[in-house]
Amino acid sequence: MPNEESTPRNVTSFECPLPLGSPKEIQIGHGGGGRLSQQLIDTLFIPAFSNPALKAAHDGAVIASPSGSLAFSTDSHVVRPIEFPGGNIGSLAIHGTANDLAMCGAKPRWMSAGFILEEGLPIAQLREIVASMRHAADEVGIQIVTGDTKVVERGKGDSIYINTAGIGEMQASKPIGPATVREGDAILLSGDIGRHGMAIMAHREGLEFETTIESDSAHLWPAVEALIEAQLDLHCLRDLTRGGLAAAMHEISTASGHEFLLDEASISVDEAVLGACELLGLDALHVANEGRFAVILPGAEAEKALAILKAHAPGGNSASIIGTVGPNDRGTVLLKSLIGVERILDRPSGEQLPRIC
Amino acid sequence: MPNEESTPRNVTSFECPLPLGSPKEIQIGHGGGGRLSQQLIDTLFIPAFSNPALKAAHDGAVIASPSGSLAFSTDSHVVRPIEFPGGNIGSLAIHGTANDLAMCGAKPRWMSAGFILEEGLPIAQLREIVASMRHAADEVGIQIVTGDTKVVERGKGDSIYINTAGIGEMQASKPIGPATVREGDAILLSGDIGRHGMAIMAHREGLEFETTIESDSAHLWPAVEALIEAQLDLHCLRDLTRGGLAAAMHEISTASGHEFLLDEASISVDEAVLGACELLGLDALHVANEGRFAVILPGAEAEKALAILKAHAPGGNSASIIGTVGPNDRGTVLLKSLIGVERILDRPSGEQLPRIC
Repeated sequence: MPNEESTPRNVTSFECPLPLGSPKEIQIGHGGGGRLSQQLIDTLFIPAFSNPALKAAHDGAVIASPSGSLAFSTDSHVVRPIEFPGGNIGSLAIHGTANDLAMCGAKPRWMSAGFILEEGLPIAQLREIVASMRHAADEVGIQIVTGDTKVVERGKGDSIYINTAGIGEMQASKPIGPATVREGDAILLSGDIGRHGMAIMAHREGLEFETTIESDSAHLWPAVEALIEAQLDLHCLRDLTRGGLAAAMHEISTASGHEFLLDEASISVDEAVLGACELLGLDALHVANEGRFAVILPGAEAEKALAILKAHAPGGNSASIIGTVGPNDRGTVLLKSLIGVERILDRPSGEQLPRIC
Repeated sequence: MPNEESTPRNVTSFECPLPLGSPKEIQIGHGGGGRLSQQLIDTLFIPAFSNPALKAAHDGAVIASPSGSLAFSTDSHVVRPIEFPGGNIGSLAIHGTANDLAMCGAKPRWMSAGFILEEGLPIAQLREIVASMRHAADEVGIQIVTGDTKVVERGKGDSIYINTAGIGEMQASKPIGPATVREGDAILLSGDIGRHGMAIMAHREGLEFETTIESDSAHLWPAVEALIEAQLDLHCLRDLTRGGLAAAMHEISTASGHEFLLDEASISVDEAVLGACELLGLDALHVANEGRFAVILPGAEAEKALAILKAHAPGGNSASIIGTVGPNDRGTVLLKSLIGVERILDRPSGEQLPRIC
């Protein structure tokens, strides 16, 4: 539930109405990570739950326990299909929440797992998914310490939904988030984009390519840890999930109030992913990722950060500096296209790819 | 995912097969808190996720962070209907997880909320549920600090499912759990039983009574805090949820290895609840509660604990001493019935009341 600290909103009342013309029922688009999602968060959840940690505008909350700072984050996973090239809903559920913690500058340590199972799910499939969770958790040193299982009738779920909530130990020495973004900062991207979304879509649509597109689902903490250990002045980290690079840039730009200028030519997209995007009429900038993140830090540190991403980030051989942060007066995202034309990068209103994570 | 430390099970292998004759698909009963649920936990989740915190046999995990102990717990809520006398899925989602923390001896502090919304859910209804969550959280001093929203297509959910995960600060000076239960301990019950389950069932079945049965959904931390502040030697606390008093007693008895002897005459059941149970052919001992808990502590401290429950527990005017802990050799639950006959209290195999929480 991202929100910002710098430009206060009306978060004091439960009565805050939805904007005129808003839908009166939940639509698929409310889950898409776009404008409708943000509207639901801003007008319904944030006003109701308002507190400093929730308003701190990040993938996870940082809570000051008496003895040290912890990061806390949650994600429910409803991806369809539940198994896809490069992973399954189990590994995704670990990566998703672990990466939210990493984006706070926290080492992921403990996780809960809540299962909503649909009657009829084969036990063998559940066993496989759970084994993937354990494997993914081991890779980054997370312990799954508590859990819950509910079962719903046929037709009231879809095989399996998994919620994970995670606790991480803050390793960053100062807060990382949109509030610290400054003019002149560089924007870096940790690798090529669009693999997770297109792996899911190609699988759903039964598309076949010369090479199977695999999800980029992966742990980001090792790369973040390397950035922290290099004592870089990290202003903001954001993993690119629903809504892709475009949604992430919009969220940070809006939350910080700064204009972002991106250079499309520097954004790496794999050829197979590009081909699938063209076939389906999708823009890779909007397609979901599960193992890529953006780094925003002072321009002077950009090259050093880039070298670290290339060495430590999943897909880091395609890492690049993709743009700069402009003045604090607009909160828009401008994209210089491949042919050199500058345009405002749209934020999609709803769900481009339903149930992508 | 309760398990025990005292009687080790086969938790070392991913290959641990389900017992012969086990179902190959998830059944509604796997979510019922009975034998099938336990089988799924013991043969699938525990072997996969095995670690000391998960094996510690309690509603929540206690994690030793570098600077102090925290409790961590999660519950997904799939109750149907989502609004019922005495609460709704929102207040229940706060109480459920907060109470799991309280049962660890931890003050509930921070919570995450993960929503899985079905397309078509009226926004007004979501707003009401979220307001109830906030109200319930405020009552016990919990902050909802992070969240997530997913939307699924019509027919892939049921209006709304809510996962909450909570972090609490340990207040108890020593571990509370089945491993510390001893022969001669007294077993106390914090109030009358069966209200939540019968409120839901009466509502579902359209039963009308002279007085509406209201769910007992409530916070248990204030009562637990009073027990801790009185420096009682708390051996085990357990809230009575799915499977009711019977399931809770079986879990602790099995986990501790001790025989429990309960006296049915001392277990309080409201007359309207009793009437509804009789009408539906249910045993109140097996019916779900959401604001009642059992306390196990040395017999010499029973009267002092009872006075605290009467003063601080929701429904505490019906609190009572309901039994004693026997020798460590059987792990069975014996019930002296109202007519004085002693019998083994059954553990139901599956789901008596589907989607009760």
